Amino acid sequence: MRFFSDNAAPVSPAVMTAIMAADTLDTAYDGDAWSGRLDAAFSALFETEVSAIWVPTGTAANCLALATLCPPFGGVLCHEEAHVEMDEAGAPEFFTHGAKLMTVPGEGAKVAPDMLRAKLATIRDDVHQVQAHALTITNATEYGLVYTPAEVAALGDLCRERNIGFHMDGARFANAVASLGCSPADLTWRAGVDALSFGFTKNGGMSAEALVYFRPGLVDQAKRRRKRAGHLLSKGRYLAAQLLALIADDLWLKNGAAANAAAKRVADAAGDRCLHPVQANEIFIRVTAAEAASLRALGYDFYDWGEGAARLVTAWHHKAEDVQPLADAIAAL
Amino acid sequence: MRFFSDNAAPVSPAVMTAIMAADTLDTAYDGDAWSGRLDAAFSALFETEVSAIWVPTGTAANCLALATLCPPFGGVLCHEEAHVEMDEAGAPEFFTHGAKLMTVPGEGAKVAPDMLRAKLATIRDDVHQVQAHALTITNATEYGLVYTPAEVAALGDLCRERNIGFHMDGARFANAVASLGCSPADLTWRAGVDALSFGFTKNGGMSAEALVYFRPGLVDQAKRRRKRAGHLLSKGRYLAAQLLALIADDLWLKNGAAANAAAKRVADAAGDRCLHPVQANEIFIRVTAAEAASLRALGYDFYDWGEGAARLVTAWHHKAEDVQPLADAIAAL
Amino acid sequence: MRFFSDNAAPVSPAVMTAIMAADTLDTAYDGDAWSGRLDAAFSALFETEVSAIWVPTGTAANCLALATLCPPFGGVLCHEEAHVEMDEAGAPEFFTHGAKLMTVPGEGAKVAPDMLRAKLATIRDDVHQVQAHALTITNATEYGLVYTPAEVAALGDLCRERNIGFHMDGARFANAVASLGCSPADLTWRAGVDALSFGFTKNGGMSAEALVYFRPGLVDQAKRRRKRAGHLLSKGRYLAAQLLALIADDLWLKNGAAANAAAKRVADAAGDRCLHPVQANEIFIRVTAAEAASLRALGYDFYDWGEGAARLVTAWHHKAEDVQPLADAIAAL
Amino acid sequence: MRFFSDNAAPVSPAVMTAIMAADTLDTAYDGDAWSGRLDAAFSALFETEVSAIWVPTGTAANCLALATLCPPFGGVLCHEEAHVEMDEAGAPEFFTHGAKLMTVPGEGAKVAPDMLRAKLATIRDDVHQVQAHALTITNATEYGLVYTPAEVAALGDLCRERNIGFHMDGARFANAVASLGCSPADLTWRAGVDALSFGFTKNGGMSAEALVYFRPGLVDQAKRRRKRAGHLLSKGRYLAAQLLALIADDLWLKNGAAANAAAKRVADAAGDRCLHPVQANEIFIRVTAAEAASLRALGYDFYDWGEGAARLVTAWHHKAEDVQPLADAIAAL
Repeated sequence: MRFFSDNAAPVSPAVMTAIMAADTLDTAYDGDAWSGRLDAAFSALFETEVSAIWVPTGTAANCLALATLCPPFGGVLCHEEAHVEMDEAGAPEFFTHGAKLMTVPGEGAKVAPDMLRAKLATIRDDVHQVQAHALTITNATEYGLVYTPAEVAALGDLCRERNIGFHMDGARFANAVASLGCSPADLTWRAGVDALSFGFTKNGGMSAEALVYFRPGLVDQAKRRRKRAGHLLSKGRYLAAQLLALIADDLWLKNGAAANAAAKRVADAAGDRCLHPVQANEIFIRVTAAEAASLRALGYDFYDWGEGAARLVTAWHHKAEDVQPLADAIAAL
Repeated sequence: MRFFSDNAAPVSPAVMTAIMAADTLDTAYDGDAWSGRLDAAFSALFETEVSAIWVPTGTAANCLALATLCPPFGGVLCHEEAHVEMDEAGAPEFFTHGAKLMTVPGEGAKVAPDMLRAKLATIRDDVHQVQAHALTITNATEYGLVYTPAEVAALGDLCRERNIGFHMDGARFANAVASLGCSPADLTWRAGVDALSFGFTKNGGMSAEALVYFRPGLVDQAKRRRKRAGHLLSKGRYLAAQLLALIADDLWLKNGAAANAAAKRVADAAGDRCLHPVQANEIFIRVTAAEAASLRALGYDFYDWGEGAARLVTAWHHKAEDVQPLADAIAAL
Repeated sequence: MRFFSDNAAPVSPAVMTAIMAADTLDTAYDGDAWSGRLDAAFSALFETEVSAIWVPTGTAANCLALATLCPPFGGVLCHEEAHVEMDEAGAPEFFTHGAKLMTVPGEGAKVAPDMLRAKLATIRDDVHQVQAHALTITNATEYGLVYTPAEVAALGDLCRERNIGFHMDGARFANAVASLGCSPADLTWRAGVDALSFGFTKNGGMSAEALVYFRPGLVDQAKRRRKRAGHLLSKGRYLAAQLLALIADDLWLKNGAAANAAAKRVADAAGDRCLHPVQANEIFIRVTAAEAASLRALGYDFYDWGEGAARLVTAWHHKAEDVQPLADAIAAL
Repeated sequence: MRFFSDNAAPVSPAVMTAIMAADTLDTAYDGDAWSGRLDAAFSALFETEVSAIWVPTGTAANCLALATLCPPFGGVLCHEEAHVEMDEAGAPEFFTHGAKLMTVPGEGAKVAPDMLRAKLATIRDDVHQVQAHALTITNATEYGLVYTPAEVAALGDLCRERNIGFHMDGARFANAVASLGCSPADLTWRAGVDALSFGFTKNGGMSAEALVYFRPGLVDQAKRRRKRAGHLLSKGRYLAAQLLALIADDLWLKNGAAANAAAKRVADAAGDRCLHPVQANEIFIRVTAAEAASLRALGYDFYDWGEGAARLVTAWHHKAEDVQPLADAIAAL
């Protein structure tokens, strides 16, 4: 049983059904009926008027967002372990034409306002230093922690104060919302977020993410940049259909909650082996090489996370009874 | 009935079956079993060792290929009506970091060696002028003409002579091969082609294209650029499965042939209304505005192509009996 | 005697004097007293408040201007024989991050409003085609013709109507103004020009050009881009001093007039050998290879301009008596 | 008296003489006689065949070098306080099209092999992480320390082992060589350096730096990139003449030694106020705000360097008797 990442999970049945239902001729690109319903669907979900476009990957969603918030000569603030900094192969630099990622430290890959202020204080306001134009945070973070609406709002206030655009990488937005029990609106635009990468691929989709703009005036540019980056698929209806299927009846939230519940079961069994609070669907545990080997011998696959640690990620399709044996095995170590 | 473009056609049943068969957990990105079979499958098809990677769009395939063949300070030769020049929103410039498209004219969007030589002759070999590093041709062309293996080879010879990389945009490669009845090898690497964008989306796929390298030493860089451009989908198995399904039992070729046959039936009816020889699956016909309106009144949709002309594109799912009424209507104009 | 180009001429004595006067310690970059006087000096010259910064080359001036007027995904309209298109090695694409040059034809390298309208009419307003964001014209043109204030204003009106930024490459702005006898203001901002590359290197400077912004709100960005492109020289006072010396007592205009007068003398002798009206300091003449050789045998150097033609350029330091023998030689051919 | 930076010092008399001697008509760009002598002059200096081109700024020299050593999708290793990271406004990202600066810590802004190995060990060799393609070090460093030939060679060995290009930012190369008393060859190519930014502007030049390639095969590309970046000045002879004047009779070395000697005199007076060993021409001293104010009241200008510290930089024109009063004032604090 594999716990490498939720990004390889199978597709939610409703998504597959929706894809098949979209298997008919319609207008190409985003001129089809499904794509045409996205703005309304996401506006309803977020309780305000938003613009939402599909892209096939989270990298594209994140980087298009940053490119619309930061000029080539600007800088993007992020956590030093953020996905955009560590694991996107320089994609932010590619899409922004060389904007500089400016990193801050913080426990559990969370950015805190004081660290951000400290970073900003080191930047001289002259033409020799890159100035910060955007902030991106990941919610849930790369270590499975969640930002609360209040925490996001504190960062949002700082962004407004400094005239900095605010992006949220929500590759696991569903897990964060499910964990917090808050409204999507409270966690985003009401807290000052300008643009959200709303992840669906890890949430039961096949290959579809939404880039949601709360701040008006940016989506037209994002659409041009999407095309220019080769991300305007000609049969976009298959992507739009996935998003609509996951939004319908709050399937996205149910899937997020299911993954979280599975993670919690493992976390409860792991107890103080846990290196971080398990607030979403990622579990980081302390294990010796021998312990890791014994788990693998039982058929569980996962990533080592440096020396003496491992990362396990649950997904929407993991049921309690699926993960109970793993939980038992960890408890028995 | 819609003849806007083959890029909006539904998905070949075998492709949908393959997608569903891939709906199981496997390693993310291109670490899955399906992706792992691509090199062998394409090598068999091309009768030589090739490297093949999937991407979700033809724009990505074309532009990644060009970025690996041309440095930022170089130029890419192409037809003045090539898709990369006209309809990719500056994507080649984005992926290559500003390489310059250098256009040549030619009937039916075909590039001829003499026009190419003439263009090259205008470029001074000094640092003030951009030097040509790559050539890209589209086969079948944007006007539905095909380059024969001999025609491609003549361009390939010129490329080798001038040390210019040679890319073929094969968004409709299947239609070209089906039309010519030649081997894929003869139309590509045996004729000097270094890299091919092998189109499957217009050929019955959902959202998958192959970037095939015949010249060794480039694919590693292409994989890094693919990731950096956000085109490394995490569930890549769904794309690989599409490609494998279309290659199996020559489905790609059958689909290409079917689209061509439908086009031929319309073309035969259109007679000398045809503005270009119909060699693949695109028909450009002379029609007055009134005639176009009368066809639309019968339920046929298509693009106007400037004043007094229209473009109709058939796809893999068009059967002879489907298009016969259209053919009759055109004949009756 | 060399008539290759005015860009290799020696330095005006007043410029050399000013450089030596600046040979004292002052604040680095553009924090010195000379640089601090530029805005006022150029504002006086242009009879309105402008922002002016120095750069060492015309390529930098042109491309910084374009980068502030056109986003990476936009297009820059220019003449098909414009210097930015032909002889800047892809610099506009580099500085703009891949914006597309969109060329229009026109006699004598002049852009006419009707050609511009025709070009704009070919661009579909969708995300598949690059949209025009800026226009750049060269005054005097690459063939030594000048745009009158009325001609510039006609283009300026079109730019405003279409929301297109308007840049003038004034590598030979002095020659144009001297030829027209108009005010610099009439030829630029009063005619709708947003930014001017005001050339001084061809006008008696050593290595200094001014980038002048008439439209507010762009110069701050230009300063950041200048630094980022490596064009913020640490001893900027030497550049500022050159510009101030050439502006003082209208030396720039006298130098331009002197070059024009020398060109006129040659042009009068050449008569109907002239391929273009000689309105500034460039003369294009019809000559056979034998005739060109005979001129060279007399000690005159110049560029061939395709078959059967030659280009001669005069500069600020050419006096009537210097060029008379050349004029006589041409008349005697 | 100003000790802000050597980058604002006046011009060495021999340089001004050379500039005036170059004030004659010659071929434009780098086709003149002075530019034509650079390769030979630098080859003699470095005791091996090198290619050397002029550029107007150190930023341009550094970034052109990096662009020829690192692809857009690669990374450049550097010290976390390196000039390229801190004070070039994102220029490396601009010239390299978004390559990522990968920083390492180290006392006095020096990069040590073990820190470099530690950094490299954190990079997974997969397509998700940016791979290191180049290393750049500054000699003398931003804190006035020098790398010895042996220290450079240790880094050079590591670069060769890992197939990493090696660049030296020699904005103060003259100061380093003068301090070490070694040969320029030992400090560069014999120690594995591929490209050197050889600074002359801080060394008595007006606005000229040399980019010197020890590794063959890169200079042609560098020349194209130079033009594309707007750094090919049309009257390049004035830059080449500066370089030749400073190389002649080892003026560069004498100027470097003079600046170092002035710095040493101040350092000796400052004693253990010095925060770093003073090995070149920069002095960092511990001073209270009151002490700094008292020095300024005596007419000495310099930069604060964070809280409780100041930076003073001497230049080629500072004579012992010039700086003695400053030294006395510091000793008397």
